[in-house]
Amino acid sequence: MLVGIVYIRFLNAGGFLSETDYKSDVHIITEKVKSEEPLLIEGFPGIGLVGNIASQQIIEELDMEYIGSIESRYFPPIAVLYEGVINMPVRIYENPDLNLIMVVSDIPINPSVSYDVSKALVDWAQSVNVKEIISIAGIATASEEPLVFGAATTEEMLERIKEKVEIFQMGTISGISGSIMAECFMRKLPAISLLGATQTQNPDPRAAAAVIKILNDLFDYSIDTESLIEQAEKIEVEMQKLAEDVRTTEQPSSTRKEFPMYG
Amino acid sequence: MLVGIVYIRFLNAGGFLSETDYKSDVHIITEKVKSEEPLLIEGFPGIGLVGNIASQQIIEELDMEYIGSIESRYFPPIAVLYEGVINMPVRIYENPDLNLIMVVSDIPINPSVSYDVSKALVDWAQSVNVKEIISIAGIATASEEPLVFGAATTEEMLERIKEKVEIFQMGTISGISGSIMAECFMRKLPAISLLGATQTQNPDPRAAAAVIKILNDLFDYSIDTESLIEQAEKIEVEMQKLAEDVRTTEQPSSTRKEFPMYG
Amino acid sequence: MLVGIVYIRFLNAGGFLSETDYKSDVHIITEKVKSEEPLLIEGFPGIGLVGNIASQQIIEELDMEYIGSIESRYFPPIAVLYEGVINMPVRIYENPDLNLIMVVSDIPINPSVSYDVSKALVDWAQSVNVKEIISIAGIATASEEPLVFGAATTEEMLERIKEKVEIFQMGTISGISGSIMAECFMRKLPAISLLGATQTQNPDPRAAAAVIKILNDLFDYSIDTESLIEQAEKIEVEMQKLAEDVRTTEQPSSTRKEFPMYG
Amino acid sequence: MLVGIVYIRFLNAGGFLSETDYKSDVHIITEKVKSEEPLLIEGFPGIGLVGNIASQQIIEELDMEYIGSIESRYFPPIAVLYEGVINMPVRIYENPDLNLIMVVSDIPINPSVSYDVSKALVDWAQSVNVKEIISIAGIATASEEPLVFGAATTEEMLERIKEKVEIFQMGTISGISGSIMAECFMRKLPAISLLGATQTQNPDPRAAAAVIKILNDLFDYSIDTESLIEQAEKIEVEMQKLAEDVRTTEQPSSTRKEFPMYG
Amino acid sequence: MLVGIVYIRFLNAGGFLSETDYKSDVHIITEKVKSEEPLLIEGFPGIGLVGNIASQQIIEELDMEYIGSIESRYFPPIAVLYEGVINMPVRIYENPDLNLIMVVSDIPINPSVSYDVSKALVDWAQSVNVKEIISIAGIATASEEPLVFGAATTEEMLERIKEKVEIFQMGTISGISGSIMAECFMRKLPAISLLGATQTQNPDPRAAAAVIKILNDLFDYSIDTESLIEQAEKIEVEMQKLAEDVRTTEQPSSTRKEFPMYG
Repeated sequence: MLVGIVYIRFLNAGGFLSETDYKSDVHIITEKVKSEEPLLIEGFPGIGLVGNIASQQIIEELDMEYIGSIESRYFPPIAVLYEGVINMPVRIYENPDLNLIMVVSDIPINPSVSYDVSKALVDWAQSVNVKEIISIAGIATASEEPLVFGAATTEEMLERIKEKVEIFQMGTISGISGSIMAECFMRKLPAISLLGATQTQNPDPRAAAAVIKILNDLFDYSIDTESLIEQAEKIEVEMQKLAEDVRTTEQPSSTRKEFPMYG
Repeated sequence: MLVGIVYIRFLNAGGFLSETDYKSDVHIITEKVKSEEPLLIEGFPGIGLVGNIASQQIIEELDMEYIGSIESRYFPPIAVLYEGVINMPVRIYENPDLNLIMVVSDIPINPSVSYDVSKALVDWAQSVNVKEIISIAGIATASEEPLVFGAATTEEMLERIKEKVEIFQMGTISGISGSIMAECFMRKLPAISLLGATQTQNPDPRAAAAVIKILNDLFDYSIDTESLIEQAEKIEVEMQKLAEDVRTTEQPSSTRKEFPMYG
Repeated sequence: MLVGIVYIRFLNAGGFLSETDYKSDVHIITEKVKSEEPLLIEGFPGIGLVGNIASQQIIEELDMEYIGSIESRYFPPIAVLYEGVINMPVRIYENPDLNLIMVVSDIPINPSVSYDVSKALVDWAQSVNVKEIISIAGIATASEEPLVFGAATTEEMLERIKEKVEIFQMGTISGISGSIMAECFMRKLPAISLLGATQTQNPDPRAAAAVIKILNDLFDYSIDTESLIEQAEKIEVEMQKLAEDVRTTEQPSSTRKEFPMYG
Repeated sequence: MLVGIVYIRFLNAGGFLSETDYKSDVHIITEKVKSEEPLLIEGFPGIGLVGNIASQQIIEELDMEYIGSIESRYFPPIAVLYEGVINMPVRIYENPDLNLIMVVSDIPINPSVSYDVSKALVDWAQSVNVKEIISIAGIATASEEPLVFGAATTEEMLERIKEKVEIFQMGTISGISGSIMAECFMRKLPAISLLGATQTQNPDPRAAAAVIKILNDLFDYSIDTESLIEQAEKIEVEMQKLAEDVRTTEQPSSTRKEFPMYG
Repeated sequence: MLVGIVYIRFLNAGGFLSETDYKSDVHIITEKVKSEEPLLIEGFPGIGLVGNIASQQIIEELDMEYIGSIESRYFPPIAVLYEGVINMPVRIYENPDLNLIMVVSDIPINPSVSYDVSKALVDWAQSVNVKEIISIAGIATASEEPLVFGAATTEEMLERIKEKVEIFQMGTISGISGSIMAECFMRKLPAISLLGATQTQNPDPRAAAAVIKILNDLFDYSIDTESLIEQAEKIEVEMQKLAEDVRTTEQPSSTRKEFPMYG
């Protein structure tokens, strides 16, 4: 059962809702998490939309259940739709059998808000005993190979991915993904960054598929990537429309048809 | 009887006034609502001005009574006039016999304020036991047919409109209408979005009429749409003037003559 | 006697000072008002500077006494001068024999501040038992006739001006004048808006004279308008200089000679 | 002895430090003032830099002692240097034998901050029993004569300068100097504005000398103005460099060599 | 052991963590400092990147240990990487044997934030009993000689560098380095500013080497500068890439490969 902010003040005593407020401006509202010491994977839209394409595929393939959302006055005013039913643009899913939580976003997070959103997200993650965080994002490269670059907050975590990915030797990760990694580093919460190499600003399901293969390898998942590759052509067209729409959400009260990532 | 903010602090004990403050910056001040578990319909100006044209027609045709307004430091400094009498740009009306509350706005809500306004509106709606919310807005389409698209916060609500409207399969609703739907979804307050298809940025009373026909069907109203169609030509001219005026309200202390939506 | 903010905290108990703070950012500081249930007339500079030209003429012709000022961090940093003596740009005057209070401003109020200023002004007006407010402003028209348009917050107030002015049938009043009228409407404080028709952005003492004639008629004043018409030519030149100066007050610490409205 | 903000909280009880916070964002931190009912003269950089050129000359010629500074998050991040030693850009000096306090600034005060700075300064002035304030600034004129214009907050103060300066008949004083005069007027703290006429935006030590002559006359000082005139040529070159530097302080962490006003 | 903000609230009692919050928006989080009355040297990127090139060289050559970081919502959202391991962009290192603390930043500090960052840094420095601060930055000169300019907050400190550097006779130090010096001056915390002369906006390891030679002389360090000169060519290329990246961190969630300063 999902209950809004207004009620939480009274119902929190019952204990079946978890909520984390950061500076009263980023709110994470979910049903009670059932997983124990879960893995949390997050994917926000960045270059190539690698983060949210991969996350959406994982959510669908692992039959994950919607358990809540992140909302903020800092986010653009937007409701997303799937088959006529309203949902939130930043959503949280869970599969308790897999001890897995996913956070997926249809909207990019403005850099000026990344600090607050990452603090709120990691606060919440710690409050539900998340033991590790995987951040999925894209990275621009000149190479045409479907490489995945990796980085980690500790040597131990780095050891786990060393043989499976290209180690990101030196550089910076900026935006919400960088904020989350920095926040995990500061709190000593183990975290891995998986960056799918992409050559374009356009949606890149092939880069998302490359990241998912690494996850399958790391966690013994069997998430299908074939369908992702097959649908690549179709999704590329649709995602481009989403990107255009997101870019125009500053316009008041306009309404558009599109094909967003959804689960 | 309507009493301002300053007095409310002292008179609230009497209980005949309801007020909801959100972050002290959006204020909803009304007389005591008489309806029980009312339906609330809202229409803010967006594309085609479908929301406020439809709402204004409903208010007039159903003989609804003015009960209060929404005011905020975030709104442009503006008083609206009808036959020489001042009123507020965002108004609330009620018909207790129909258990119906209408919220209509003459001013567009800036996206940066949508979050606060929608929270304040849904807070207030819950405080007066609103059981369902209908959000009227426009949607841009290429088709010339007077279609109405629909979406809902729950499968049950979707069921009620399934046979009467085009289901909005996938996409986003942005602006104040999107914020209100997202807020209702989060709080599990049943809500329906009715989006009148329009082809232009100009006022579109025909799209408003199409939405009203759906409402007549859903709630057994007999709201006239003929007069709306007949007046379409005339109103189109007048609304265009309003739209121009609203665009220029940033100018300090200028005063203009126009023909706004009013009840 | 006039005492500043710092002292008020200690002297307020004595009761001879009235002060109204709105959100700590707009301050109205005056000597004790002697009038009982006074009329309050306000004139801020807008189109044609009708509001402050008319107000300044009333203050001079009715021998009104300076009793205080409105100050705010939101106002431009400016001191006005008359014959070598410093005064505030937004001033309050009183004539207790006439039960009349005037508020006159030499500076335009930024739309983003209108909300706070009008709330502070109407709060203060109610605190000194003002029974009615008249707002003087300009309105752009194509007609060359010296028309005065009128609007009111109630039917009763409208009745009083119906035969004397052109009723403002439909439209909007924006800026500080619109904010004050909306605020009065919300609080059910009777208020009338008198809008002198003007054709130009330049100072228009003839429009101010037309408004004063209506006030003479409404309240049995005998305020001279001949001198205003005679001085029209001269004042037009001077006011234009003020307008230019006000436009340039954003420059730090520049100082200019001019001929402002003053009493 | 001078002690920073952090310590003041603990040491204030000792009473040898005076501090005035305005809205926590403007801080005046000084050693204990020894003068009794002192005169306070202030000079901020404005047109012709008349205010700080004159103030710096007075500080040097009257052997005034540095007693503290004004600091604020609103000021540009800057340290000033003289012969290798760091100091603050807005400084306070005292000569207890003359019962005189000087406030001199090397940085212009942004108009949006003038309100807070003038309130903080006049608060502090009252806290150390300042009996009169003289504000030195420049005024743009077309005349080539070295005129000094004067204005005052009361008729009594005006009387004292009437025969010595050109009375500023009508106009406005904007910027920090205008804010301080308005603040003094509101609090009935006697104050005089001395405005040295200047024809250019460039540093004008001759205008500063003209103002100092008035001060010599008013207070029986014997401040040298010859050296100021002699150095005029040299200082003009150096001040221009300062003006250019101040204009470019928005650049992060750049460092420049220059010749600032200093004592 | 390093523990994040969330835990500190509970663990602070244990006393092994020091944290200084300034206005809740700049946070310094470190392990317990072991040095007694240490020297603190800071280097932020400014002209020629002299500050962070020199600081990074010192950290590496003196085998300093990472003990924590400065983080703020005001900083760009960024995580830095070295050999695949995440770290913070503003870092603090210690060598307890040398009683030395270093603060190095890979990101420039926006002037609007310099005030808060310098207050937080000096607060923290005082909380760990820092006895002296050295600020390293660049200074633009026309000369091709590898000069180092110096300034100090007191005559005593100036005496120590007088024979070793060019005394900065007159001028201003702006940006974070100027803020820190002004803050130290106000608090009477002894501080020296060492400004490596540079001719270009490009990274200038030779200017950094010149500053390090002064430090070697002042504190009997034997920090290698040869390797710095040798690597000059290579580092110039790499630093230019960092500078370009930092300039583009406003872009949401983009990720890049680069070669940042790191230890």
